[in-house]
Amino acid sequence: MDKRAFLSGLFDAAVSAADPMTALAQALPDKPKGRTVVVALGKGAAQLAAAFETLWQTPVEGVVVTRYGYAAPCRYLPVLEAAHPVPDAAGLAATDAVFRAVQGLSADDLVVALVCGGGSALLPAPPEGLTLEDEQALNRALLASGAPIGVMNAIRKHVSRIKGGRLAAAAAPAKVVSLVVSDVPGDDPAQVASGPTVPDAVTASDALGYIEARNIVLPERIMRHISSDASAAPVPNDAAFAGHEVKVIASARLSLEAAAARAEAQGIPAVILSDAIEGEAKDIGLMHAALAREVALRGRPFPAPVVLLSGGETTVTLRENPGRGGRNTAFLLSLAAGIEGLPGIAALAADTDGIDGSQDNAGAFADGCSLARLRAMGRDPGDFVKAQDPYGAFEALGDLFVPGPTGTNVNDFRAILVDPQS
Amino acid sequence: MDKRAFLSGLFDAAVSAADPMTALAQALPDKPKGRTVVVALGKGAAQLAAAFETLWQTPVEGVVVTRYGYAAPCRYLPVLEAAHPVPDAAGLAATDAVFRAVQGLSADDLVVALVCGGGSALLPAPPEGLTLEDEQALNRALLASGAPIGVMNAIRKHVSRIKGGRLAAAAAPAKVVSLVVSDVPGDDPAQVASGPTVPDAVTASDALGYIEARNIVLPERIMRHISSDASAAPVPNDAAFAGHEVKVIASARLSLEAAAARAEAQGIPAVILSDAIEGEAKDIGLMHAALAREVALRGRPFPAPVVLLSGGETTVTLRENPGRGGRNTAFLLSLAAGIEGLPGIAALAADTDGIDGSQDNAGAFADGCSLARLRAMGRDPGDFVKAQDPYGAFEALGDLFVPGPTGTNVNDFRAILVDPQS
Repeated sequence: MDKRAFLSGLFDAAVSAADPMTALAQALPDKPKGRTVVVALGKGAAQLAAAFETLWQTPVEGVVVTRYGYAAPCRYLPVLEAAHPVPDAAGLAATDAVFRAVQGLSADDLVVALVCGGGSALLPAPPEGLTLEDEQALNRALLASGAPIGVMNAIRKHVSRIKGGRLAAAAAPAKVVSLVVSDVPGDDPAQVASGPTVPDAVTASDALGYIEARNIVLPERIMRHISSDASAAPVPNDAAFAGHEVKVIASARLSLEAAAARAEAQGIPAVILSDAIEGEAKDIGLMHAALAREVALRGRPFPAPVVLLSGGETTVTLRENPGRGGRNTAFLLSLAAGIEGLPGIAALAADTDGIDGSQDNAGAFADGCSLARLRAMGRDPGDFVKAQDPYGAFEALGDLFVPGPTGTNVNDFRAILVDPQS
Repeated sequence: MDKRAFLSGLFDAAVSAADPMTALAQALPDKPKGRTVVVALGKGAAQLAAAFETLWQTPVEGVVVTRYGYAAPCRYLPVLEAAHPVPDAAGLAATDAVFRAVQGLSADDLVVALVCGGGSALLPAPPEGLTLEDEQALNRALLASGAPIGVMNAIRKHVSRIKGGRLAAAAAPAKVVSLVVSDVPGDDPAQVASGPTVPDAVTASDALGYIEARNIVLPERIMRHISSDASAAPVPNDAAFAGHEVKVIASARLSLEAAAARAEAQGIPAVILSDAIEGEAKDIGLMHAALAREVALRGRPFPAPVVLLSGGETTVTLRENPGRGGRNTAFLLSLAAGIEGLPGIAALAADTDGIDGSQDNAGAFADGCSLARLRAMGRDPGDFVKAQDPYGAFEALGDLFVPGPTGTNVNDFRAILVDPQS
């Protein structure tokens, strides 16, 4: 078996599963009797909307809201840009445009909400009595709190006219179909872009509890607003949503499952470790190495051959004057040290958007002989570690993986083939 | 089920399996016709030797060599102390005593070699023409090179009169039974204490290859010595060892397997992730959390209920003015953040020697509610992270695990019970 071709094939499967056209094609709703209104919201909204227009074949109304610089041409839909991660006045105007798009619909009409990450900040909608400045202050305080996404969203949903299902409520009596590209651990669609079209049972009391427990300091006016509403969930989580549909069409999870299916079709069992691994790339690399070693040397916790798959978003803490390379090559240089001398282990780690860090590679290949090959070339692997230049190590080896930009993003993709007999 | 009692029970099983008395009792050789000579070598040698004396019941001859400060009373055997990790003159004298102990034996005599970590540095034995200073220089250069233990030992074995099976050769024609406590990944007995009684196929050419590949700079005299012997393995890896026995009696692997057996006897399936995980404690905690979440939320890569077991030796990189806590509480504080809100996950992480860092606890308990409980007490989990005081967090919770010193050491022990139904 050509191991690199095999691993590249798994990456292709993962990226394909997250491709807007592929993902939407499998989730298209039935055509309505009435009008079709599309609201596409988030950093990948323009690509999603363009793909939807192509697949839908007939003209659509609606609006696209994305981040500055993330626009892409659509055939029918206007594309608005706004600020992320702290909202701006363009976002206010975009929110108004979104509400206008879903006004005056009938029960025969269909709203297709294409929702992806970033939509929360792009669509400020301060409730009556609050201003854009209040919502900006809220967003800054939440970002600084370090609270997990679910907690931030629970609070945001009680300081907004659009989040937590309120956009769907405004579209009544039209049917709302939400097609969601998840960028959150666990893939809860109510958490993506703060769920403008997805109901959420979180109450204002819950939100106040989070604020108190985490000592989050918010402007007095915001606290008064949340307190004044301390009993109700953002919108009634009930019959009003009975006719609606919510579907996660792309996520790290679905991409890893597609890669696993591809591997198994080629006769290699696959296991998904997690789609949401965080932590310093080099240390996450060491733990992946330890797992791969355990499989290679002892046939546990999974029998070999097997391909270990994982996703998520690692980090790289840079010192002064770092070299080149993103989190995927940093992961791999560390992994290579941990599997050194085990030729039966081969890995690919790459960013699903096709770009790892600021070079043109998505990631690289590594195996149990990578460091020995570097040394045979007269290069010291430790020098690349010290210089924080993992890109340089894999460049020297000729092992960079350069598929080019993919047009989608479900974070990191890692595949480690363990086959001691090979 | 009382989860903490369950997890403590797994720790007890792990520690018991590594207890010198328990480990030796299952591996005692048959009594010889002739004399019984014990050579106990390494940081835990005195505890091993004392346990052996008790189990053997009849008097033994021989010698114990351990690190300064690590001596413990033995009934028959003299206990010598020497320097670690860079050898000293006391080590030279200890090596002489070890060789004297195995001189003049007959085929009816038995040599029991009790070997554990640290024995390599404790027993300097420079070959003819080299000095203690040469061996010290060699050790310093190897420690500074960052080479893995197998590479360091391959080189050491070609600059020694004792390592790589040479002590066993000197004991001929007596039978040699080596009972080894492993502190090396993979548990190869030839790598523990550089294998004084275990043959190794590594040649001087191999050693020279490693030195060149890694740019290790060694004194000219040492290089000449290795080169002069560039064809032969340390000792003939053949019939000379046919009658000998080598057995690993304790290791992280065996301890984790004992814990797994204990869990399964209580009806909880167990998986061993790895016995040799390295990396920054907090990041290794995040990856364990991601795995536990995947199990809890999606029943993969293992079905729940399950207990995830792992071992190894993580590290904690301290900034200025750190607070209290060792690598196990650092691991757990990070894990607790990663599993927050999932009450079906409960973990114990502890050092098998009974002391994590410089306090009196071995580790602590954490679960999906640990951080919420801290907040309910008016404490901010982030403050403990910032202060690098994970001990303080678990002290405040009353969740420290304090079994006291255990008298053995197979590094870290981690058990994470995932049982979403509980």
